[in-house]
Amino acid sequence: MADHYDSYRGKRVLITGGAGFVGSNLAHRLVALGAGVLVVDSLVDDYGGNLFNLSGVDDQVRVNIADVRDQHGMNYLVRGQDIIFNLAGQVSHIDSMRDPHTDLDINCRAQLSLLEACRRNNPEVKVVYASTTQIYGKALSLPVTEAMIRHPIDVNGINTMAGEEYHTVYSNVYGMRAGSIRLTRTYGPRMLVRHNRQTALGWFVRQAIDDEQIQVFDGTQKRDYTYIDDVVEAFLIAGESEAINGRVFNLGGTRPVALLELIDTLTRVAGSGSYTVVPFPEERRRIDIGDFYTDYSLISSTLGWRPTVELEDGLRQTVEYYHKFKAHYW
Amino acid sequence: MADHYDSYRGKRVLITGGAGFVGSNLAHRLVALGAGVLVVDSLVDDYGGNLFNLSGVDDQVRVNIADVRDQHGMNYLVRGQDIIFNLAGQVSHIDSMRDPHTDLDINCRAQLSLLEACRRNNPEVKVVYASTTQIYGKALSLPVTEAMIRHPIDVNGINTMAGEEYHTVYSNVYGMRAGSIRLTRTYGPRMLVRHNRQTALGWFVRQAIDDEQIQVFDGTQKRDYTYIDDVVEAFLIAGESEAINGRVFNLGGTRPVALLELIDTLTRVAGSGSYTVVPFPEERRRIDIGDFYTDYSLISSTLGWRPTVELEDGLRQTVEYYHKFKAHYW
Repeated sequence: MADHYDSYRGKRVLITGGAGFVGSNLAHRLVALGAGVLVVDSLVDDYGGNLFNLSGVDDQVRVNIADVRDQHGMNYLVRGQDIIFNLAGQVSHIDSMRDPHTDLDINCRAQLSLLEACRRNNPEVKVVYASTTQIYGKALSLPVTEAMIRHPIDVNGINTMAGEEYHTVYSNVYGMRAGSIRLTRTYGPRMLVRHNRQTALGWFVRQAIDDEQIQVFDGTQKRDYTYIDDVVEAFLIAGESEAINGRVFNLGGTRPVALLELIDTLTRVAGSGSYTVVPFPEERRRIDIGDFYTDYSLISSTLGWRPTVELEDGLRQTVEYYHKFKAHYW
Repeated sequence: MADHYDSYRGKRVLITGGAGFVGSNLAHRLVALGAGVLVVDSLVDDYGGNLFNLSGVDDQVRVNIADVRDQHGMNYLVRGQDIIFNLAGQVSHIDSMRDPHTDLDINCRAQLSLLEACRRNNPEVKVVYASTTQIYGKALSLPVTEAMIRHPIDVNGINTMAGEEYHTVYSNVYGMRAGSIRLTRTYGPRMLVRHNRQTALGWFVRQAIDDEQIQVFDGTQKRDYTYIDDVVEAFLIAGESEAINGRVFNLGGTRPVALLELIDTLTRVAGSGSYTVVPFPEERRRIDIGDFYTDYSLISSTLGWRPTVELEDGLRQTVEYYHKFKAHYW
């Protein structure tokens, strides 16, 4: 633990979506660093919020069940906070096409509400927004830098792009201390594995552990996968940096990995599961982006962050977690 | 009138925002071309909808007062249409910062509702969305091409960018015939001159005609101004082109014009009004973008469009219109 994390001791930190995958892992780290953590989560069915994710720190975090779409509730909850890690979101691409209005409410309207709540009730608060590299759409060149033009390929990408831009504009126009980091495909303990609409990777983990045959669509597509501990580290660094205000930074993985290598490694470390390559279903092909991995040199040079956990190590820790706590996630 | 506009004869055309500046001018042209025009407009106070704009074609267009935010109404209204010119919007940058949620409802939610209405009730319809070059934010290089990264500088720009991207995604994912054109600063008869929150230019026209002293902020900033007839032409070309589906095209002006030249020309052709240069008010400086003009070569090479009306001619026609019909606009 680096010295500069001492700055979290005694800090009041709000995590929206704090019972979800990334939020709960962040909550565990913040408790260890001595922060006072308030988790806000609506526990919407299927979105990934799971109170078991907070198991072990239950008595050290304050959990407030609330929906970030509720402007009145947020007006109250943001008061007195030093830092807000803004992670609440609907992240299923499939769901965003089936119900675009709900995606809009959560990923656009709620972001505006949160920023308005801060502007009016706590204008000095630090806000770090969890955006995603999926807002770029297809890669026009590889690796993808922050200077690449964004053309999201689904409603979720569009709305997340808007949510991110609100943070930039509120920083530039109102001088708020808000900025964004763009997550790649993040994996690790506490990720949602209950259904396959949020991340394919979570579903693969479940299938491997259940000793099922995994269907791989194509398999040659290269992506970057970031282990959860590296993502948590990025949030911690961003939360104490003034250099992120009004800006956005790509995260990335240690190296681009082909889907087939991912599945092969996963089934090997799990010691169960198999795989077969199948053609792309039409619904998914239309919103697939092919090869995609980022250039994360901007956050490296600005904030000193880089991914450190190799795929095999990350997958091993992930599988171990679910072997142990399967009952709470299946 | 080019031959290919014969294709509009007998066509059923819906114009959202059809009582507004661009929509009403488009309605006049479409009636002259023999189209059956349905105007949908909510006549929200201050947004620019004005039934006098349809004076002269009142008995030839069908006017349906409705809000594009009303999903049920739109489900019905889109049926049986051949082409939808989708122009309804909140376009005041100042208002978008004062009331970001209303801007979101109109520029994001209503666009999703319209596209969903079409997808479910009229999937073959052609949709042309009126976007704006203001979604780019500051110009990183001049002239601005469609390949330039967009970082809107206010909530209105973010939401309009999302509205545009929905059209692209619905075209790419569902095969809908939807595309967008990005308007620059458009001027001409029937523009809103009642207040100064929507366009500075409309307000300048009013001040010149009222023989007032115009306050020019800075004055050296170069912009592109497109005369309304050129914009209407772009919509007519786009409405009959399959090449716009899933794509976006910049419009532009005949040449970049410094603000001081604009004001000088305006007061000269009006024969009234004067001007003085003043410092930027803080609220506006923060959302000002400096020099900004586009490269419109993509729409020129793809659709054969180019601006033809020079500033002085356009301003003269604008001033003549308001001299004549001032009572309906002041």
